[in-house]
Amino acid sequence: MEPTVADLAKSLADTQSALNLVWVMVAAFLVMFMQAGFALVETGLTRAKNVAHTMGMNFFVYAIGIIGFYFVGFGLQMGGVGALATLGGDASLNHEFVINLFGKDFGLFGLKGFMLPLSMYTPAIAAIFMFQMVFMDTTCTIPTGAAAERWKFSSFVLFSFVIATVIYPIYANWVWGGGWLAALGANFGLGHGHVDFAGSSVVHLTGGVMALVLAKMIGPRIGKFGKDGKPRPIPAHNIAQVMTGTFILAFGWFGFNAGSTLAGMDGQLAIVAVNTMLASATGAFGAYVFAKYKFGKPDPTWLANGMLAGLVAITAPCAFVSSWAAMLIGLVSGVLVIVAALFIERVLKLDDPVGASAVHGVNGAWGILATGIFANGTYGQGLNGVAGGVRGALYGDWGQLGASIIGILANIAWVAPVAALAFFIIGKLVGNRASAEDEVNGLDISEMGILGYDDAGPGTGGAKPSLPA
Amino acid sequence: MEPTVADLAKSLADTQSALNLVWVMVAAFLVMFMQAGFALVETGLTRAKNVAHTMGMNFFVYAIGIIGFYFVGFGLQMGGVGALATLGGDASLNHEFVINLFGKDFGLFGLKGFMLPLSMYTPAIAAIFMFQMVFMDTTCTIPTGAAAERWKFSSFVLFSFVIATVIYPIYANWVWGGGWLAALGANFGLGHGHVDFAGSSVVHLTGGVMALVLAKMIGPRIGKFGKDGKPRPIPAHNIAQVMTGTFILAFGWFGFNAGSTLAGMDGQLAIVAVNTMLASATGAFGAYVFAKYKFGKPDPTWLANGMLAGLVAITAPCAFVSSWAAMLIGLVSGVLVIVAALFIERVLKLDDPVGASAVHGVNGAWGILATGIFANGTYGQGLNGVAGGVRGALYGDWGQLGASIIGILANIAWVAPVAALAFFIIGKLVGNRASAEDEVNGLDISEMGILGYDDAGPGTGGAKPSLPA
Amino acid sequence: MEPTVADLAKSLADTQSALNLVWVMVAAFLVMFMQAGFALVETGLTRAKNVAHTMGMNFFVYAIGIIGFYFVGFGLQMGGVGALATLGGDASLNHEFVINLFGKDFGLFGLKGFMLPLSMYTPAIAAIFMFQMVFMDTTCTIPTGAAAERWKFSSFVLFSFVIATVIYPIYANWVWGGGWLAALGANFGLGHGHVDFAGSSVVHLTGGVMALVLAKMIGPRIGKFGKDGKPRPIPAHNIAQVMTGTFILAFGWFGFNAGSTLAGMDGQLAIVAVNTMLASATGAFGAYVFAKYKFGKPDPTWLANGMLAGLVAITAPCAFVSSWAAMLIGLVSGVLVIVAALFIERVLKLDDPVGASAVHGVNGAWGILATGIFANGTYGQGLNGVAGGVRGALYGDWGQLGASIIGILANIAWVAPVAALAFFIIGKLVGNRASAEDEVNGLDISEMGILGYDDAGPGTGGAKPSLPA
Repeated sequence: MEPTVADLAKSLADTQSALNLVWVMVAAFLVMFMQAGFALVETGLTRAKNVAHTMGMNFFVYAIGIIGFYFVGFGLQMGGVGALATLGGDASLNHEFVINLFGKDFGLFGLKGFMLPLSMYTPAIAAIFMFQMVFMDTTCTIPTGAAAERWKFSSFVLFSFVIATVIYPIYANWVWGGGWLAALGANFGLGHGHVDFAGSSVVHLTGGVMALVLAKMIGPRIGKFGKDGKPRPIPAHNIAQVMTGTFILAFGWFGFNAGSTLAGMDGQLAIVAVNTMLASATGAFGAYVFAKYKFGKPDPTWLANGMLAGLVAITAPCAFVSSWAAMLIGLVSGVLVIVAALFIERVLKLDDPVGASAVHGVNGAWGILATGIFANGTYGQGLNGVAGGVRGALYGDWGQLGASIIGILANIAWVAPVAALAFFIIGKLVGNRASAEDEVNGLDISEMGILGYDDAGPGTGGAKPSLPA
Repeated sequence: MEPTVADLAKSLADTQSALNLVWVMVAAFLVMFMQAGFALVETGLTRAKNVAHTMGMNFFVYAIGIIGFYFVGFGLQMGGVGALATLGGDASLNHEFVINLFGKDFGLFGLKGFMLPLSMYTPAIAAIFMFQMVFMDTTCTIPTGAAAERWKFSSFVLFSFVIATVIYPIYANWVWGGGWLAALGANFGLGHGHVDFAGSSVVHLTGGVMALVLAKMIGPRIGKFGKDGKPRPIPAHNIAQVMTGTFILAFGWFGFNAGSTLAGMDGQLAIVAVNTMLASATGAFGAYVFAKYKFGKPDPTWLANGMLAGLVAITAPCAFVSSWAAMLIGLVSGVLVIVAALFIERVLKLDDPVGASAVHGVNGAWGILATGIFANGTYGQGLNGVAGGVRGALYGDWGQLGASIIGILANIAWVAPVAALAFFIIGKLVGNRASAEDEVNGLDISEMGILGYDDAGPGTGGAKPSLPA
Repeated sequence: MEPTVADLAKSLADTQSALNLVWVMVAAFLVMFMQAGFALVETGLTRAKNVAHTMGMNFFVYAIGIIGFYFVGFGLQMGGVGALATLGGDASLNHEFVINLFGKDFGLFGLKGFMLPLSMYTPAIAAIFMFQMVFMDTTCTIPTGAAAERWKFSSFVLFSFVIATVIYPIYANWVWGGGWLAALGANFGLGHGHVDFAGSSVVHLTGGVMALVLAKMIGPRIGKFGKDGKPRPIPAHNIAQVMTGTFILAFGWFGFNAGSTLAGMDGQLAIVAVNTMLASATGAFGAYVFAKYKFGKPDPTWLANGMLAGLVAITAPCAFVSSWAAMLIGLVSGVLVIVAALFIERVLKLDDPVGASAVHGVNGAWGILATGIFANGTYGQGLNGVAGGVRGALYGDWGQLGASIIGILANIAWVAPVAALAFFIIGKLVGNRASAEDEVNGLDISEMGILGYDDAGPGTGGAKPSLPA
């Protein structure tokens, strides 16, 4: 029997939904794989005596994040208005906490979707859960770099639960869950509200602010600053891990950014991917030129951090800017990451072993500003309930830049004190910093119970325990 | 000229087929990449003196598997009834070997599709070949962990051919090729027959049973058990490799499980992926809590094996269970893997260097049982020719649990004796175990001809052979 | 309101375009990830004292390639006739440089699309930019292996820009941009012209020819040849890196080859992927058998290079050949790569540390020849404006083999002199080869400013700089 036109229309809509779902899932897989990239970059940038500990944190944070997000985080983030229109999700999830100020509604967090009950366990909601979860987990893994080589594992576990359940989801609700920052345009005429396509603020600025707070509160590694207060280099132990991890991150970032169309039917995903690639390249190139000029040699860890800075910075504007702007945004970030890292180390006297604050914090903020400046008006029609494409200050909409600035300030105002309070309380409960003796010996045995690199190597008959009794 | 409704219906069906094909292929690529994960996990968990050998086995098994499956395995597995209805594959491949018992047909293996002749080399059959191949190759790589650090390479090559051509395809035919285990529901009213969505039994139990057989037959590594018979730890040599490999496996597992819908049009793939992610997290978390309780420290290798155990266990039930059940299944597996590994080592006195029996065998069986218990009836309509969704004992269908138990017993009854016989014969032909001297020195030079880690390292002027003559 | 048939037809066409776009993008991501594979293979095959340098080159080449291709390469390659019909790209990009010889048009390079101006920054053009970019970057990374452990970083940077802007794009235009080699069939009746489905010539032969030129011009590493002129082994420093990298390459290669359908709607992508997998397996197997016969031991680096050789060789013919031919092409390449590597080392007296010339050059040529021999006529209808499927000599079309041979000769004739000239000029500008002292000490400190592997390891209190002042 021949189908009717109505049958075909229904079947075609199902096909388009399926393509959207497949796209989001593949993108989510790629983002999940970034956890391996973080693990390798952070482990490579620190010392051999802490390999099991640094790897252990970067590994276990993935599990902690999933559990925290399942029980609490997802409901707080996405259980409010509007968010589930994407992917054909129904509105049944929507129930949110709102306060009214200045005669306007300020959505603060959602209240439905906790523990993915069977009635809500549809393909569309499952997809959005997965995609948001891997973004949240990316955020969770950023502070592990800043507090590496001295953080007690039990404190790390508790703090990561706080990120996954509270710190990340609340801010994400404000931007992606239909909350008050998203509504700055509709409520106050500030462009399209705070626009962050794939997370320069939601993921990276959040992570970077926490990194800075932890680096300050936990204090520098023993030996990082001399008696004269001058910083001393603590070299990365394995450049192969650093560069491999950076490639994994750049690979996964295509899922991160291009997947944020949330729709395979949206051809903009190709432009997003190319802008992402361009900024990653100029980020690395900017760092190359600046490192050559500043230090005389193109230290590969700067090249890596330059590429990562470019990726962080393009994450918010990737869907909205021209190719030349993507090139420029990346180039600036490649220089900025070095300047920021030196400032944090030399002026603020903070010890952030992997440069997380500079890469994710400073360049996350730069990415948000860049969106408010360079968005060219060709994309984002109707975003956050505002007509027309997103335009930055360069294209005449200064309100968009204003919303960007408010978004950055709100992030810092929320994340910094809550992270500091949580870290303080956890410190009282279980202690945050390993003992000096454990730190000097490395945290592998004391915190994890095994060495990261055991075995006496080839030619020695193997590790002692394998010799016949 | 405007297309007719019939034209559109045809074109739409083609589009849906293409989406299904693309989904299966992307999933297959991800599963293939798991080979790198296995290689890193197994190499990291063993000793530096066997790096070239352990890597060599995990690498070459991929090639052996492909060749064996091309010539023999695929035809035995999928050249029977029903299998190729999926993906729009035509029935021309179908020709199978069936015996009749108790008045019922027992399909045992297929008889067509050997060497992918041009007449059958269609996109749909190519896709199913690729997807099944990478599953089979996953199975082949599991025993390399159990016999690591003492297995002769030539014996490994021959044994892997036996897996790819006979051991795996026959059992896979029974479950996924329309064979007698799949027909337990239609023939005997046991639920939907033996249901294994993505391979807890077909892949993991098969691999785990072989791992146990090989660990027993090849004997423990020199020095593993003291004169008092007590096991002694042989530490992992590189935790960075172990954790990176585990992330690669968890990444590829999304293809493994979600890809097993065999259709991008089937939105259940999103629920499958989320269940997979949830169980991986609680698996790691269960291992964390239990290891802290049992040993006092969260050894990262237990965290990794806990996550892998959760992944193995959710592989069969991932499409059929609620989110809370996925959380529970993973949590149990994270404890179970440690208990099982200790039992195998301390009670059975077997030396399985990477814990393959505990991860894949014990948790594969647990995953199959969990399907028979927790399947909630929302999915699997019409599977194996039985109406309605798959329901486990908790939802009233004890026959489903019965089919699960029969599936496990059939696996052990087929795999264990055939593997033991093959290993015995190969031992007579080429010898299974390396000499004690080679084992103590490491198998890299004796079996592979090069060291895994050569070079005297930085600052020494490089390896001796590079100095000027 | 019910949609009309015309509405549905439009929407269906959009859906198919979106599926094509999604497929190309996912494939491009996979190809990009191959950069990590190259980095690991090359670093693992060389020495620990050059880890930061070898990793640094393989990392930074990605950024250089993007920048060079953005400003110049893409326009030269694809800004000509015909190329953008794929993916629904419009013709506005087309403007090319053509010369007329023998009364026929010889397209030499394109002249539009430089810097991706906003008017051309459509999803289709962005997708083709990204896909072509990652192919070009693969080519750029090949010579870094041949000149490893002695190449000055500044020279490497300049030379890589030359590849990305000139050497690669011009030849790619001839084959994939509608240039004169593509037109050999339409113009001169030579089959379908020079057919290279995914780059055995465009990517691999180009890279391999450059590798040979550089190995010759830069000269062997100190100590590679004894006073007697005999080659001496310089062992790989890390087999775990080599094998992991090879798996990453084999994984990404599925994007490389199957993605080259440029359409998710084209089911041939499944056959391409299976042929790719088959040849990779027989390549490794051929190398195994030949290495066992020749050297007595299955050195894993030969297994890896055998698999890579099989992948290189199947890259051109993967869409056109039967499964048995894919098996055969791979098997030959697995032997050929060893024979060629020994010839290059022992007869030509060249030092190519990773075997790039043998893997990419010799097997790239073999892949092109194999296309001209084994193409079975089932695919490629209308390719390069010629009716009917592509048939090789074995299926009666000797003209196709002729076009293959012309394609190889044209590659060598273009690439070798331009690469040699560029390398010569760059050598005059900044010097190509590091000093003997730096080479003996390793290039990490002298060229990159840091050691690849620092830190005194566990149990020592960490690297010296971290001790308290």
